[in-house]
Amino acid sequence: MQGQNQQQAYDRGITIFSPDGRLYQVEYAREAVKRGTASVGVRTADGVVLAADRHARSPLLERDSIEKIHKADDHVGIASAGHVADARQLIDLARRQAQVNHLRYGEEIGVESLTKEVTDYIQQYTQTGGARPFGVALLVGGIEDGEPRLFETDPSGTPYEWQAVAIGGDRDEIQTFLEEEYDEGMDLEAGLSLALRALGSVSDDGLDATGVDVATIDVESEQFTALSEDEIAERVTELELEGDDDE
Amino acid sequence: MQGQNQQQAYDRGITIFSPDGRLYQVEYAREAVKRGTASVGVRTADGVVLAADRHARSPLLERDSIEKIHKADDHVGIASAGHVADARQLIDLARRQAQVNHLRYGEEIGVESLTKEVTDYIQQYTQTGGARPFGVALLVGGIEDGEPRLFETDPSGTPYEWQAVAIGGDRDEIQTFLEEEYDEGMDLEAGLSLALRALGSVSDDGLDATGVDVATIDVESEQFTALSEDEIAERVTELELEGDDDE
Amino acid sequence: MQGQNQQQAYDRGITIFSPDGRLYQVEYAREAVKRGTASVGVRTADGVVLAADRHARSPLLERDSIEKIHKADDHVGIASAGHVADARQLIDLARRQAQVNHLRYGEEIGVESLTKEVTDYIQQYTQTGGARPFGVALLVGGIEDGEPRLFETDPSGTPYEWQAVAIGGDRDEIQTFLEEEYDEGMDLEAGLSLALRALGSVSDDGLDATGVDVATIDVESEQFTALSEDEIAERVTELELEGDDDE
Amino acid sequence: MQGQNQQQAYDRGITIFSPDGRLYQVEYAREAVKRGTASVGVRTADGVVLAADRHARSPLLERDSIEKIHKADDHVGIASAGHVADARQLIDLARRQAQVNHLRYGEEIGVESLTKEVTDYIQQYTQTGGARPFGVALLVGGIEDGEPRLFETDPSGTPYEWQAVAIGGDRDEIQTFLEEEYDEGMDLEAGLSLALRALGSVSDDGLDATGVDVATIDVESEQFTALSEDEIAERVTELELEGDDDE
Amino acid sequence: MQGQNQQQAYDRGITIFSPDGRLYQVEYAREAVKRGTASVGVRTADGVVLAADRHARSPLLERDSIEKIHKADDHVGIASAGHVADARQLIDLARRQAQVNHLRYGEEIGVESLTKEVTDYIQQYTQTGGARPFGVALLVGGIEDGEPRLFETDPSGTPYEWQAVAIGGDRDEIQTFLEEEYDEGMDLEAGLSLALRALGSVSDDGLDATGVDVATIDVESEQFTALSEDEIAERVTELELEGDDDE
Amino acid sequence: MQGQNQQQAYDRGITIFSPDGRLYQVEYAREAVKRGTASVGVRTADGVVLAADRHARSPLLERDSIEKIHKADDHVGIASAGHVADARQLIDLARRQAQVNHLRYGEEIGVESLTKEVTDYIQQYTQTGGARPFGVALLVGGIEDGEPRLFETDPSGTPYEWQAVAIGGDRDEIQTFLEEEYDEGMDLEAGLSLALRALGSVSDDGLDATGVDVATIDVESEQFTALSEDEIAERVTELELEGDDDE
Amino acid sequence: MQGQNQQQAYDRGITIFSPDGRLYQVEYAREAVKRGTASVGVRTADGVVLAADRHARSPLLERDSIEKIHKADDHVGIASAGHVADARQLIDLARRQAQVNHLRYGEEIGVESLTKEVTDYIQQYTQTGGARPFGVALLVGGIEDGEPRLFETDPSGTPYEWQAVAIGGDRDEIQTFLEEEYDEGMDLEAGLSLALRALGSVSDDGLDATGVDVATIDVESEQFTALSEDEIAERVTELELEGDDDE
Repeated sequence: MQGQNQQQAYDRGITIFSPDGRLYQVEYAREAVKRGTASVGVRTADGVVLAADRHARSPLLERDSIEKIHKADDHVGIASAGHVADARQLIDLARRQAQVNHLRYGEEIGVESLTKEVTDYIQQYTQTGGARPFGVALLVGGIEDGEPRLFETDPSGTPYEWQAVAIGGDRDEIQTFLEEEYDEGMDLEAGLSLALRALGSVSDDGLDATGVDVATIDVESEQFTALSEDEIAERVTELELEGDDDE
Repeated sequence: MQGQNQQQAYDRGITIFSPDGRLYQVEYAREAVKRGTASVGVRTADGVVLAADRHARSPLLERDSIEKIHKADDHVGIASAGHVADARQLIDLARRQAQVNHLRYGEEIGVESLTKEVTDYIQQYTQTGGARPFGVALLVGGIEDGEPRLFETDPSGTPYEWQAVAIGGDRDEIQTFLEEEYDEGMDLEAGLSLALRALGSVSDDGLDATGVDVATIDVESEQFTALSEDEIAERVTELELEGDDDE
Repeated sequence: MQGQNQQQAYDRGITIFSPDGRLYQVEYAREAVKRGTASVGVRTADGVVLAADRHARSPLLERDSIEKIHKADDHVGIASAGHVADARQLIDLARRQAQVNHLRYGEEIGVESLTKEVTDYIQQYTQTGGARPFGVALLVGGIEDGEPRLFETDPSGTPYEWQAVAIGGDRDEIQTFLEEEYDEGMDLEAGLSLALRALGSVSDDGLDATGVDVATIDVESEQFTALSEDEIAERVTELELEGDDDE
Repeated sequence: MQGQNQQQAYDRGITIFSPDGRLYQVEYAREAVKRGTASVGVRTADGVVLAADRHARSPLLERDSIEKIHKADDHVGIASAGHVADARQLIDLARRQAQVNHLRYGEEIGVESLTKEVTDYIQQYTQTGGARPFGVALLVGGIEDGEPRLFETDPSGTPYEWQAVAIGGDRDEIQTFLEEEYDEGMDLEAGLSLALRALGSVSDDGLDATGVDVATIDVESEQFTALSEDEIAERVTELELEGDDDE
Repeated sequence: MQGQNQQQAYDRGITIFSPDGRLYQVEYAREAVKRGTASVGVRTADGVVLAADRHARSPLLERDSIEKIHKADDHVGIASAGHVADARQLIDLARRQAQVNHLRYGEEIGVESLTKEVTDYIQQYTQTGGARPFGVALLVGGIEDGEPRLFETDPSGTPYEWQAVAIGGDRDEIQTFLEEEYDEGMDLEAGLSLALRALGSVSDDGLDATGVDVATIDVESEQFTALSEDEIAERVTELELEGDDDE
Repeated sequence: MQGQNQQQAYDRGITIFSPDGRLYQVEYAREAVKRGTASVGVRTADGVVLAADRHARSPLLERDSIEKIHKADDHVGIASAGHVADARQLIDLARRQAQVNHLRYGEEIGVESLTKEVTDYIQQYTQTGGARPFGVALLVGGIEDGEPRLFETDPSGTPYEWQAVAIGGDRDEIQTFLEEEYDEGMDLEAGLSLALRALGSVSDDGLDATGVDVATIDVESEQFTALSEDEIAERVTELELEGDDDE
Repeated sequence: MQGQNQQQAYDRGITIFSPDGRLYQVEYAREAVKRGTASVGVRTADGVVLAADRHARSPLLERDSIEKIHKADDHVGIASAGHVADARQLIDLARRQAQVNHLRYGEEIGVESLTKEVTDYIQQYTQTGGARPFGVALLVGGIEDGEPRLFETDPSGTPYEWQAVAIGGDRDEIQTFLEEEYDEGMDLEAGLSLALRALGSVSDDGLDATGVDVATIDVESEQFTALSEDEIAERVTELELEGDDDE
C-alpha cells in the first residue's frame, strides 16, 4: 500500500518541499546519477585527470559513442554520470557558454565561471514548474590562471570544488578509495594511475582498456587531451588492473 | 488493486523521476517501441544495410504504405520501430535538418550530427511538461567522410553508434543473433544477408519478400538505394528463409 | 471498483503512455470511430469508390445534412466515420491545404501529400497536452499522376494506403467481406457494387438508397462525382440489397 | 460510492474520451439543453417557423427579456434551448458573422454557412482544454437562394438540417408529434399551427399566448418577422390550445 | 463521507457540467449571492426605485462604506447583493462602458445594452478556466428612451428584465411580497414605499433608516438621485416600519 | 480521516466557491490575519490614530524592523496585521499609487481612492487562478479634503470605512472594547489613549512602550507622524498600562 | 495512513493557505533551512561579523567551494543557510541590485534596501503558482550611513533586523546562546569571539578553523573582509574552542 502511494506521490508534477524540507525530485534525480556508470576526477599539481567507465551492453556497440568525457573548450573537459540525454544538454550549454566568452571577451572562460553557469541553469529546473530536474552529475576539469581546477555539479544545481572525486555508480566506495590514496603533491601521471586504480577498485572483473575513457588537461599546454586506447591499455597493464579472464 | 493504482500513476501528466531514479514515461515509450515490428541495421566495410519487417494486418493494405525505411537525404537512410505517427515527425525533422545543412553550408549533413539533432529534439520531450515522449526508436545509417556510420536513437534521446543493431519487437533475440554472426570485415552483400537472416531468425513462418523492406547506403555511390521486391525475394530464396507454406 | 478507477484514469488530461506502451486516449478515440456508421473505400483500375452509411435518427432529418462523404478538391473525395464535428475540422483542413497547393504551385495536391498533411495534424493532438485526439477516421480517395489512390487516416495520425477498406461501425466484418470479394482487376462499376454489397453485408434490414452516400473519382475525368439517389437506388435494386419490408 | 466517484470524474477539467469513445462533458452539456424550455422549428414550402416556450418563473418578470428567439440577420432567425448565457454568446457570434459577410462580400450570408461558422466554434470548446462546452442547442432558420432552410446545432458542434425539429425539454415527445403531423407540402400558416400544437402537446395546462415566442422567415419577403402577442393569442384560440383555467 | 467527497469535488478548478447538466460553480456562486443582504428594485410609470439593506456588523462601521447602491451613469443606478469585492469589479466595468459610450457616440448608453455588456463579461467567467464565477447579482435600473427599465444580472451571466425584483438574502420571501403588492400603474413615490415595505417584510426588528440605502432614477430628470437619511427616515416613519425598540 | 481529507481539499490550487457560497481560500487567508499581532485605528475629530502591537520573539530582534505601521504618503499611514511579506507588497503598491497621483494630477491621492486601488488589486488574487489571496488586512488612515478618514482592507478585497477598528489577533475582543469606549467627539489625544488602552485590554502582561508602534495623521498638519518610544512610554505610564513585572 | 496522505498533500503544486492560515510550503522551506549548517551574524558598535559552519563531507572537498559567506558589494556581506543552489540565486540577485544602484545613482546601495529587494523577490515565490519557495535564509550585514546593520531574510520573504542572530541547523540553541552573551557595547573583535563561541556551543567535537568561514564589515573601512584560515585558527585557539582529538 505504501509503495503505491509513494508512486502516486512522485508522479505529480512540480518539484516542491516535503514536510522535512527535502526536494524529492532532486533526490530521485540523484538516484538517476547513481544508475549511471562511474566517472572520476583527480586534480594534481600539473593538471587534471578525468576517467570514466564506459562498459557497453553489447559488443557491437561502438564504445566511442558512449559519451562520458567531452571537450568543452580547449582548456576544459567534462565527465558525466547519469542520464545520458540530459548530460548532452548541459554539455552543449557549457560549450555555448565557452564560445560566447571567446566572442565577447576574447579570452577563455574560467573553469569556475563555466561550472556556475551550468549549476545556475540546473537550479532553475528544480524550482520552476513544468519540467523535471536534470538526472546527471558532471565533473568539470580544466586550467584557470595556470592552476588546475576540478568541479562537480549535482542535480540540485550546487557547485563543489574537489581535489579528487567520483560520481555515478559505486560513488561512495570509489570516493573512499580516493580519500585513502590521494596525495596533494602527486603529478599528472600519478593522478592518472590513481583514477584508473579507483575505477578498478570497484570492478570484480578488472579494467578493460576499451571500457575506459580518459582525458587530461595539463597546466603546461592548457589543452584537453584524450588518451588513446593504447595509452590506456599500457597503463592498465602496468597497474595490473586487467581482469583474470581465464577464471 | 496494484494494477489500478499503476494505471493512475502513468495517467498523470509530466515525465518525472521515480524514487529509484527512473523516468517511467520514457520506459513506457520503450515498450511502445517493442510493440512495433523489428528493424535491423548492419554496418559493413563498404556500406550500411537497413532492413525492416513490415507485415500487414490485411492483404488489402498496401505494403509500401507501411513506412519503415525512409530516405532522409541522398546519403542517409532511417529505419524506424514503434509508434508510426511519432516516427513520421522525427523523420520530417531529420529531412528538414538535412536540407537546412545543404542550404546553409552547401554540403551534406554528417550522419552523427543529424542523429544528434534528432536526439536533442527527443530529449526535450522527456524533460519539459505538456507533452509525452516519442514512442519510437530510429536507426540512422549513412556515409560520412567516406565511412559508413550507423546510429540508434531511443525514446530517452540518447544516441548510440553500432556495428549492427536491432530495434522493435524481438529486439533482444535479434541482437543476440547479430552478436553471434556479425563479422567486422563483411562486405555489403554479406551484411544484407545477415540483416535478412536476423529478421528471419525470429519468424516462425519464414520471411516473405513482400513483408520486408530493405535499403543500402554504400560507400562508393554514397546513395540511399531501396531494394526492389524482386531483389529481396532473390536473396530470401538464396538464404532459404521462406516459410514452409505447405505445413 | 475497477470501472470507477478506470473512469478516473481516462478523465485525466493529457495523452501519455501506459506501462505496456499504449496510448489510451488514442485507443478510446478509436472507439469513438466505431460508434459512427461505416464508410467503405474501394480502389479499382479506373477509379476510386467511396460509400457510406448515413441512416437518420428521424424521418424529418435531411439526409444530405448527415455529412459522410465530402469533396476535398476536384480530384479528391473524403469519407469519414466517427465524431462528426471532429471530421468537419479535418475536412476543412484538407480543403485549405488543397487550395494552398493550387495557389502556391498552380497544380493539384497529391492524394498522398494531402493525406499526410492531415495525419501530421492529427498526430500533434496525440502528443502535446491541452487537447484530446480527433475521434474520427477518414478515407481519402483520389487520382494522382493518373493513378487511383486510396488512403486511411486513424486517430493516432498514421496514414495507410489500401486497395479496399472499411472504417467505423462493423469495420471488422466489412473488412473481412472486402478481403474475400475484392479483385484487383475490377472496374469502377464493379468496385461500386462491391462497396454497396459490403455495406449491405452488415445490415439486417437491407440497404435503403436514401440511407447511403456514394461518390466516385475516376481516372478519366479526374473528377469527384457524387451519385444521385436514383443512381444509388438503381444499383441497390440490381444487387437485390433492399430489405424485405413486408416481413 | 459510485455516485461520488462519478462526481469526481466530471469535475475534472478537460473534455476527453471515455473507454467506450464518448465525450462525457459533451453529453452533460446535452443535459443542460434538456433543462431549458423547448423550442420548435418547422420548414414549409413558403418559409420557416420558429416557436419557443418562454414561461416565466414570476409574473413580474418581463416575458420579452426571456430571450428564446433572436433575429440574426434580416433573413435569419435563431431559436435557442438550454443555458441562456451561453446562447447569447453564440447568437452574438452569428450576428457578427452575418455583418462581416455584408461588409466583405456585399451580400447576405447563407443559412448553411452561418450555421457551420457556429458549429465550428462550438467544436473547439469540445476539443481544446481550458474551457467547457456550450450548454445550448440552436435552431437556425432562414431563406437561402429563395429556399427556406432550417438547421440545428448541438453541443458537440454538429450541424443538422431538418424539415421540422424540437430542442430542449420534452424534445423526444415533441419530435414524435412533429414526425406524425408534419406534411412536406404545408404552407407557412399550417407550419405555424403545427409548431404551436407541438409545443401545446407537452403542456398539461394549455398554451398561454404570452408564454410563447413565435417568428417566421418567409420566402417572399425574406424577412425575419416576430409575431405580436395578439397574433399568437388569435392562433392559440383558433387551435383551442388554451388551458382550461377553471379547473 | 459524502460531505468530504463533495468538498473535494467543488475544490477542483474549472466550471464544468455535472451529469445532469448543471454548472455547480455557478450554483455555488448563487449561494454567495444569498449570503449577502437583500436589494430590491421597483419599476414604476415615472421612474425606477432601488433600495438595499445595509445593516452593519459593528456600530463603528460607517454605513456609507457598505456599498450597496452605486451610480453607474447620470441615468443609471446599480444595486448589488453578494460578494462585495466582486460587485466592485462589475460596477467599475459598467462605469467604464458608460464612459466609453459617451466618448464614442456622444450619447448615454442604453440600460439594456449596459446590462448585457456586464452579463457577457460574467458569462466568460463561467466557461473559460483559470477563474471562478462572480459571486454577485446586480439590479441595473435607469431611463432609456424616456422609459424606466429594470434589469437583473445573475452569476450565470443571464440578463432578466423585471417590473419588481429582489436579490440576495430572503430573496424568495421578498419576491412573493412584491408579486402580491406590485401594481403596474403605481407612481415613483408608491414604488418607493413598496420597496421599503418589501425590505421591512423580512425584518423582525423593523427597518432602521440608517440601515437602508435608497435611490431613484425618474423619467423627468433622467437623473440618479440618492435619498438622504432624513428622507428615508421620514418614509420609514410614515410607513410604520420602525422596529419596536422597547421590547 | 476527516482531517486528512480537508487537508487535501485546501491543498488544491484555485480559489473557488464551496456549496454554501463561501470562498475557502479567502477565509483561510483571514485566519492568517488573525495569526498576526493586532493593529488598531481610531478616527477622531482632528485626526487619525494608528497603533500596533509589535512584540518580538527575541530580545536581539530590532523592534523597528517589525514593520506594522508604514507611511504611504505624507498624509496617509497604513497599519497591517497578518502575513508580513504580503503586507509589504500591498504597501509598496499603495506608495506607488500615491506617487503616480502626484505625478499625474499634481495632487495628493484621496484616502478612499487609495484604499480602493488596493482592494481592487487584492480582489484579483481571489478570483483568477495561479496565485493565492493576500494573507493580510490593512488599516489605511489619512486626511482627505480636510477630513480624517479610516479604512480597512480585508483578504477578500472589500473596503470598509470605520470610526474605530481592530485587525489581527484578538480582533473581536479589541473591537468590543472600542465599541464600548469610542466617543465620536474625542480629540486626537483621547483617540491615542483609546488606541493604547484597546491594545492593552488584551494583554495579560501589560503594554511595553517598546512593543508598540504608534502614528497619527492630524487634520491641521495633514502629516503622518510616528511617535517616539519616549512619547509612547509617557502615555503608557499615564494610562497605567505597564505590566506588573514584579509578579 | 496519515503519513501517506500528508505526502500527497505537500506534493501538490501551489503554495496556498491551510484552514488555520498557514502556508505549508513556506514552513517546509523553513525546514530546508534547518537542514543546512548554521550561520551567525553579530552587530557590534564598529562593524558586523558573519560566521558560518562549513564542515565538509569529504576531506578531498575544497572547503572554499562550500559557499556560506559571500561578498555582495564592497560594503555588504551575505551569509546563508539551507539549500545551497537556491542561495546562489538570491546572492546573484543581490549582487546585480548592488551594481544597478552603482550605475543608476552613483552610490552604494543601502543594506536595508538591498535586503528588501531580496525579500520582495522571495515573497513572489510564495504567492504565485508554478514555482516553489526558496529553501534558504540569508544574513545580510553591512555598513549604511556609517552604521552597522544586520538583516535576516526568511523563506516567507520577511526582512528582520537583528543585533545578533543565527540561521540554519541548531538555530534555537545558538540564538539562546547569543541572547545570553550578547552585549550591545561590544567591539568588532568581541563580536567575532561571540560568533565563534556561538558556533562552537553546539559542536560536540569543537571548532576546526578550516571548517569555519568568517568575514567582517567594519565601520571604518566600510569594506567586506574575509578572515584567513590562520586568523581564524588563532582565535579558535585563544578561545579554546578546538575539539579534543585524542579522545
